[in-house]
Parts: sequence; C-alpha cells; structure tokens
Amino acid sequence: MNELEFIDRLKAITTHPAARGLADDVAMMPFGRHKLVMTHDMMVEGMHFLRDADPADVAWKLVAVNLSDLAAKGAKPLGLLLGYGRTAGDAWDAAFVEGLKQAIDRFSVPLLGGDTVAMGDNAPRTFGLTAIGEAKGHIVPSRSNARPGHAVYVTGTIGDAWAGLQIASGALQADDIDISATLLKAHTRPTPRLEEGRILSNLVSSMMDVSDGLLLDASRIAAASDVKIEIDLAELPLSKPFQTLVGTDRDARMKAATGGDDYQLLLTASPETVLSVPLTCVGICRPGSGIALHSHGERLELPDAMGFVHA
Amino acid sequence: MNELEFIDRLKAITTHPAARGLADDVAMMPFGRHKLVMTHDMMVEGMHFLRDADPADVAWKLVAVNLSDLAAKGAKPLGLLLGYGRTAGDAWDAAFVEGLKQAIDRFSVPLLGGDTVAMGDNAPRTFGLTAIGEAKGHIVPSRSNARPGHAVYVTGTIGDAWAGLQIASGALQADDIDISATLLKAHTRPTPRLEEGRILSNLVSSMMDVSDGLLLDASRIAAASDVKIEIDLAELPLSKPFQTLVGTDRDARMKAATGGDDYQLLLTASPETVLSVPLTCVGICRPGSGIALHSHGERLELPDAMGFVHA
Repeated sequence: MNELEFIDRLKAITTHPAARGLADDVAMMPFGRHKLVMTHDMMVEGMHFLRDADPADVAWKLVAVNLSDLAAKGAKPLGLLLGYGRTAGDAWDAAFVEGLKQAIDRFSVPLLGGDTVAMGDNAPRTFGLTAIGEAKGHIVPSRSNARPGHAVYVTGTIGDAWAGLQIASGALQADDIDISATLLKAHTRPTPRLEEGRILSNLVSSMMDVSDGLLLDASRIAAASDVKIEIDLAELPLSKPFQTLVGTDRDARMKAATGGDDYQLLLTASPETVLSVPLTCVGICRPGSGIALHSHGERLELPDAMGFVHA
Repeated sequence: MNELEFIDRLKAITTHPAARGLADDVAMMPFGRHKLVMTHDMMVEGMHFLRDADPADVAWKLVAVNLSDLAAKGAKPLGLLLGYGRTAGDAWDAAFVEGLKQAIDRFSVPLLGGDTVAMGDNAPRTFGLTAIGEAKGHIVPSRSNARPGHAVYVTGTIGDAWAGLQIASGALQADDIDISATLLKAHTRPTPRLEEGRILSNLVSSMMDVSDGLLLDASRIAAASDVKIEIDLAELPLSKPFQTLVGTDRDARMKAATGGDDYQLLLTASPETVLSVPLTCVGICRPGSGIALHSHGERLELPDAMGFVHA
C-alpha cells in the first residue's frame, strides 16, 4: 500500500463536503456568514528537511507551506496550531522557536496552541502545523473548475527554489554572492502569496499553489477539471538570478517546470477576466486530459518526472 | 531544556488572547457570532502507545483525546485534520483507518483533511490530530476561575483506564471476563464527555478533562485559579469493576486519583449552582495554593507523583 492507496482508504471514510474529497489542498466549511479554510502539513527530518538544515529555516518553511495552501484559496490566516515532536537538542529547539517567531511576525498570523511530545532518541524530528483561515469572498477556488479556453497563469517566477536547493546541496555554484543569496533564500524562506490569493480568489476558475512542480501541479488541475492543460515552456517566468545561474534554454526551463517548492500560485481563468495582480500566462486549457508541453509552438515530450512525487 | 522550558519559549511568542497563554487545553477565538475552539494532540509510537497496540484502538484514542479537550470547553466538534506519519505496515494502516472510521462515526465528527508522510524505516509512527469545534454558549470555561468555596466535581468514574492498563500490561489479572473487558475498554476506547461538557460549560467556574491524573489535573486548576483544592479520596467515584479488581482502600483510591487517562470532566462550580448532569463532588476550593488530600476528614500526605508528567 503506497501513499496514494492509503489516501484512497482515507477518502472512503471522508464523505463530508467540507473535505472536498481530499482532492484539494484545504478543507472548507461554512461557519456563520464566512467560510473556515483549514489545512495541515507535516515535515519530517530526513524526508522534508536535512539533519543539518537551519532550524529557523525549517520553522519558517513549515509556516510558509501551510499558509501557501490558504493563499491558494484566498483565505486570510487566523491562527496556527503546532505539533512539535522533539529529540535532544536545546540549541536546535531554541533556533526553531526563533524562526517560528520570524514567520508569524512576517505573515501576521498568531500561534494559538498545539502540542509538544518527546520523540525518543534516534527518531526523526517531526512537526505538524495546522493553519486555520477565513475566506470572506463568495468563492473559495478549488482545482476543478478550469474549462477549455481558460488561460493558465502563475504568479512570480518559477525555478528559483530549485536553483537554491542545487546551491545548498553543492550541485551548482554561483560566483555572484547576491545571486547565490537570492536563490538560496527562495529555497529556505519561501513567501506564501497571501495578498495575491485574496485578490484572485473571486476571479479564477481554479487555483492551487506550486509545491511539487509546475507540470505536476498543473496535471492535478487538469485531472480535477477534466481538461487538458497545454504549457508553453518558453513562456515560463524565470528570474534574472535563475537565468544567470541555470540559463534560459529548454533544459533550464524544464528544471524550473519540474523543480517544485516555488509556492507561487497556479491558476486558470477566462481569458477575458481582468486579473489585477502581476501574472504570467504560461498555457491554456483544451478539451482532453493530462498535460501537453510546447516551446515556441513546437510540441515536446513530457519529462519522466513532472515534479516531486511523495513516497 | 525540558518540555516545560521549551513551552516557556513558545509562550513568549504566543501573545494572542485566543491562545489563552498556552495555559488551557484549547485555543479559543471569536468567529462571527460564535467561538472557534481548536486543539491539537500528538501520539508517538513507543511513547504514547505500544508497538503491539491494536491500530484501531490507537486511532480511536487519537480522536477521543482531542475531542475530550473540546468537551471540557463545551464545544461541539466540527471536524478533524489528521497528520499521519507512516512506516511500513499495510495491515497496520488499514486497521488504523478502520478504527478512525469507528471513532468519527461514534462521535459524529467528520474527517476533513490532513497530510500523510513517510517517516522512513525504523522511525516511530507519529500522528497528530487537530480538532476544531464551535462553542455557542456564552462562556468557554478555562482553568482559571475557580474561587474559594466552589465545589470540585468529576463526571463518571475514575481509575478504570488505569486498571485497564494494568490488565493490558499483565500487572493485574481479572478472573471475571466482563470486568476485564470493561476495564480494558476504558483504557483502549475512552469516551469524551461531549454532551456533559456542553451542558456544564455555562454553569461551571472552571473545567478541564482528566488526562494526566485527577490530582495533577486538579493542581493545574488550583494554579491557574490561585486557590487550594482539597480532594477527599473517600469521595472518589469508583466503578464496580474497579472496586472488584483493585479494591476500595486508600491505596486503591490513590491509584485511581493519580492513574490518568480517564477523560472524565473535572470542574468547579459554586455549590449553589444546580448542575443537571450526574456528577460526584470530590472536593472543595479554599484560599491558598496547591492540592490538599483528605480521607474521611483525615489529612493525608501527597503522593510523590500526582499523575503522569510528560518527558
């Protein structure tokens, strides 16, 4: 039983409409006149972060990835609950709290409570974070309302976090210290697109965050919406630092399209809709299914891995 | 840095009033016309459950302990988010899902979402559950409003889960199969006092659930409310199965008072208040601090351990 089979079993007992069939990044439940948006993500040492990662970065990322799920639904964060599985390491814990404080201050979201447990010796540090938000718009976008003809957009630039990971792991080296720092920061300190998400949520036909890779995440919108999504690699927004370090050719763009950890918003909307935040159109929805990849009009083969598939 | 020192660091960055200073079992936040009540508890294999525990019981308990926190605040459960850290074991996972289904059906609370992660080989299974509830009463009781003269009550009976743990571990043996089954079930399948909690929440001066031991939990109300709590051991409500297996003498009562895992409600109220659910008065609040223990009017020494203190 792999993760997907296990999730299928959970889906079978998850019948409440608020759960959205476990096919979205969040649960969404009407509460009074507004809507409650809830998400929970875990991070395990050795699986989601390295043993020698900066604990403050780990705390930041734990907050950012959860808030990114709220951002993709246009929700305003109300608070966080932390599950903290400790192992020995006082300095580690203290640095984690420091990073947590930086993140909750930066994103103006209070820590409300949670639980701390001892994991025992030799166990991996294991953290869970629940983010609870409030959606005041009429629509809390899902992944399932993209239609043929709708344009596909992303916020910001794609691939920076992937490039930062290459620098962190020593696979790539940037001569320019500013370029190195910018890309590393995209990897260690992602910024959830909360403001953009709130503006976009009433305008889009589907929206999610780019966590596992643009192509893989786009394929999820395609599957949920029953459309084919054509992505034009040549249109991918690449940052100057990425272009300098990795390049702008097809290989570089393929890395950006599959690297993941971007925490930008990926969305679809009718091409007539005026979307009042900076976006790049990277593709279009067609009748059909799956992902089709183009570059300057030329049809490309799909890569073996469209993103990061969890074990 | 032990757990309490770590929590002190978290407290320093947890300033939002909804967090209740991390001194309650839940966070409580006004939302529209009602109040949102939130809690998160973790369970780690080898720390909170044994490797050979029935996975369905583990799932049940994970749900029950979180709902018990909501019960103590008079909140109606709205939904659950599950963080599931897997290790190898398909049959284990399948049985867990089955127990989860039994619990969510029994307590009428939907699973709304969450996250599953691979923990890696040899890591302990690690689960977190977030329970979100709604309080419609005027008051969401805390631990801090007990006053001198207020009576101290518990729901149900105390000590059954402790006795069940002794049976499960082989430390005690019940000849009667019904007695054995009843006590084991109190240990493996606790029932959160949701209905009682909702009725009591507007009537009590403080309320919490008995998770770590009656004396230890009472000491927390005493500390938060700045009162002394006198407990009369002779008044402790003991079930027939407990009495038969463990006895009714002072030693037996001390086991019940410190065993924990009862998930009954412990509350204080003005003695004039009519509390319309079955309760047993086990003590009284006095000026002062800490716990005083009596039995039939005789002052007793406090035991070395008043309950289960987490590592």
